[in-house]
Amino acid sequence: MTISRLFASLQTTRFAHIARFLPLLRDNHSGLFDHFSSSSSIDLFRASPTSPQTPPQNSRRNQAVEMSSQAAHPTLLIPGPIEFDDAVLQSMSHYSESHVGPGFVSTFGDTLSMLRKLFQTSDPASQPFVINGSGTLGWDMVAANLVEPGENALVLSTGYFGDGFADCLAAYGASVTKITGAVGGRPQPDEIEQALRQKKYKIITATHVDTSTGVLFDLKTLTDVVKRVAPETLIIADGVCSVACEEIAFDEWGLDGVVTAGQKAIGCPTGLSISMFSKRAVDVVQNRKTEPATYFASMKRWIPIMQNYEAKKPSYFSTPSPQLIHALNTALSQILARPLSERFQRHMQVSDKVKKAVADLGLKIVAERPEDQAHAMTAIYLPDSVSIPSILPKLLDKGIIFAGGLHKEIGSKYIRFGHMGPSAMDPKRPDIDNALEALRAALAECGYKG
Amino acid sequence: MTISRLFASLQTTRFAHIARFLPLLRDNHSGLFDHFSSSSSIDLFRASPTSPQTPPQNSRRNQAVEMSSQAAHPTLLIPGPIEFDDAVLQSMSHYSESHVGPGFVSTFGDTLSMLRKLFQTSDPASQPFVINGSGTLGWDMVAANLVEPGENALVLSTGYFGDGFADCLAAYGASVTKITGAVGGRPQPDEIEQALRQKKYKIITATHVDTSTGVLFDLKTLTDVVKRVAPETLIIADGVCSVACEEIAFDEWGLDGVVTAGQKAIGCPTGLSISMFSKRAVDVVQNRKTEPATYFASMKRWIPIMQNYEAKKPSYFSTPSPQLIHALNTALSQILARPLSERFQRHMQVSDKVKKAVADLGLKIVAERPEDQAHAMTAIYLPDSVSIPSILPKLLDKGIIFAGGLHKEIGSKYIRFGHMGPSAMDPKRPDIDNALEALRAALAECGYKG
Repeated sequence: MTISRLFASLQTTRFAHIARFLPLLRDNHSGLFDHFSSSSSIDLFRASPTSPQTPPQNSRRNQAVEMSSQAAHPTLLIPGPIEFDDAVLQSMSHYSESHVGPGFVSTFGDTLSMLRKLFQTSDPASQPFVINGSGTLGWDMVAANLVEPGENALVLSTGYFGDGFADCLAAYGASVTKITGAVGGRPQPDEIEQALRQKKYKIITATHVDTSTGVLFDLKTLTDVVKRVAPETLIIADGVCSVACEEIAFDEWGLDGVVTAGQKAIGCPTGLSISMFSKRAVDVVQNRKTEPATYFASMKRWIPIMQNYEAKKPSYFSTPSPQLIHALNTALSQILARPLSERFQRHMQVSDKVKKAVADLGLKIVAERPEDQAHAMTAIYLPDSVSIPSILPKLLDKGIIFAGGLHKEIGSKYIRFGHMGPSAMDPKRPDIDNALEALRAALAECGYKG
Repeated sequence: MTISRLFASLQTTRFAHIARFLPLLRDNHSGLFDHFSSSSSIDLFRASPTSPQTPPQNSRRNQAVEMSSQAAHPTLLIPGPIEFDDAVLQSMSHYSESHVGPGFVSTFGDTLSMLRKLFQTSDPASQPFVINGSGTLGWDMVAANLVEPGENALVLSTGYFGDGFADCLAAYGASVTKITGAVGGRPQPDEIEQALRQKKYKIITATHVDTSTGVLFDLKTLTDVVKRVAPETLIIADGVCSVACEEIAFDEWGLDGVVTAGQKAIGCPTGLSISMFSKRAVDVVQNRKTEPATYFASMKRWIPIMQNYEAKKPSYFSTPSPQLIHALNTALSQILARPLSERFQRHMQVSDKVKKAVADLGLKIVAERPEDQAHAMTAIYLPDSVSIPSILPKLLDKGIIFAGGLHKEIGSKYIRFGHMGPSAMDPKRPDIDNALEALRAALAECGYKG
């Protein structure tokens, strides 16, 4: 379906809602190019018409207001950043406050306390951190603080982000052993047990959901193995694409660290590194033999700051971002207003629906086995006859932004569909149905018959 | 003047504008506590009435609209974060975009290019960086990338932040020599020359304006000395409290690095580490003997990303923050719409006015010599009879937030007044006059006769 045809059918089809972002397409033909390549030479929009008919102004404006207080825009369904709830986004434009004034200190303190509930830890010795940065900074915190140069780290990789965590650990001097799952799969318990029996590891890391492949790691089984075979080894999960959409029972499973970021299922704009560490991990930080070779990522410097803020006392090491903390506060308040179990269940239901639709289209999922499949994103192999640069602009024509592939071996063969946060949880949002319908139509336009 | 009396005089006094933030005071008695102490035991608000009369709703609402599209709030005049221009703040609630989509890539690319103008560098080999973080992360970038462990760094300190830069360099293994200025002064050229002749230094760092003292470093004279005595030494300025308010001629002076943050005179919300490095600095990064012990702060990893974004090509290392980049883009567009010289001149005029008013009150400035005084903030010694916990709440009563002191030797003896960005540049804002009037009144209420 082209932009022109869409305009013609605005008032009669189920795509009527996308009238709200068509001006964007008309103005600059932009809004989409999401496979992580350094090439921009492909003209994604060559086949698009350049002067579509303008829709009735009143109708479009009314629809935009009805949908959201946000400006008209295509629906962002990549596996993060994600669509924002209006209230979260409005929190970003909070007037300026002092980073050590009582109003902001109280908001930040409450935010840190709410993180304990999100991570399901009731141990007062668990330590939450919220620091300006992004998901990557969480790796640095682990690598700089929990491992001393020369100590062993076992990295379980299920894609691009597992490999990145290994690179980060190595950059800080860890001696890294990596077990890489088959493409679309994950290292198995017996391999992990074998590795743990061969050498003493200071930490073991697993990417709970690797955003590059949509492979889910079974953290519960992993922690069982580690507790049995190498109980002294600290267990760290990269939860960037799992916190707030996949079950994480920090205390119950005996995790020592989970690092994440605001812009995935938590539903906050990018800019925050968010993490939780156990008492065991904090003790390791406090009892190192060598001082960590970092300053901004130094947990020892941040711990008293986080503890003061949570106790509603002003404190200073490096200036936090009041606007981002307000947005996180709003997002966490929304998340915790309902039982977490319900949230995880809802993401599973949406995931089941997406995966069934993908199977009905005759397509395969990168994470092959159902038990390895993440519930808030789906990495979908394209048919042989369809390329990423041919299908993504057709999806954009229909108001949907998916991401391209991001795996060194299969990057050009699949697309990624993020179905998390408001797009999955808000029953008023038609995002998922629209995306599935757009996928069917785009594939058909590419000549795929299913 | 108490809150009750303020309400009573709302319609008749020059303080009428502050009706807009009085509900905040009524609700939680919060909004101020800005000396960087870890103690919160002082009840700043003990003397305040708890149930002031509510002002007429319509009048208050109209005044708020007239002043700004922002919610009613006291004026934040600490030396950063600062008051925001409405358009900058509105950019923070931009709808969600892909971090590698063409719309955002274009915005980010333009933002990086604009930074070249802000730093006054026309050398295409100069490299701008914008990374999620804060000012502190800039120190890490310098310490992790430009100095290899064991190499010498000469730090010129004029307060808390010079000391912090030294700590950061030491954390990454630099051998640090520090020259500390007398309180309120700065190291002098002959001391610096003597130090440079005694040892070979990889880098020399100076805090252009130390936010803790308001001491301005004469960067031009410094670079003259270094070029003459130790031309191979990289010259790095901490410009957190100077970029966009003090003259910085990156190319002309031969600087090798300036690190700053968004939330000071640039006028963007906190959350961005912003920096510029010279070709000489980039060459040092690329030709290190050892790999830097960092990942998130690795310039080598970020350089291709920044170069791709500026060339409008999508690229990925760690997810940037579209909302903060939009705000920065808006702020830079506003700044560069007028000659920079005019901006610096305006900050000098406002500074002269503030400093004259302080002198007229019989008070002393921490930076004693006029040539050592910053132009976008003033650190003001309190009279012996007036304490920080007595005067700050009185200032808040009048709608003004200043910061307390932040220097290990004199922290309890002075307050800090930030007069930068919109508060200094926007002729419609009465912030500076209001602050000076509030200061006079608050001192009088504290019993100071001047």
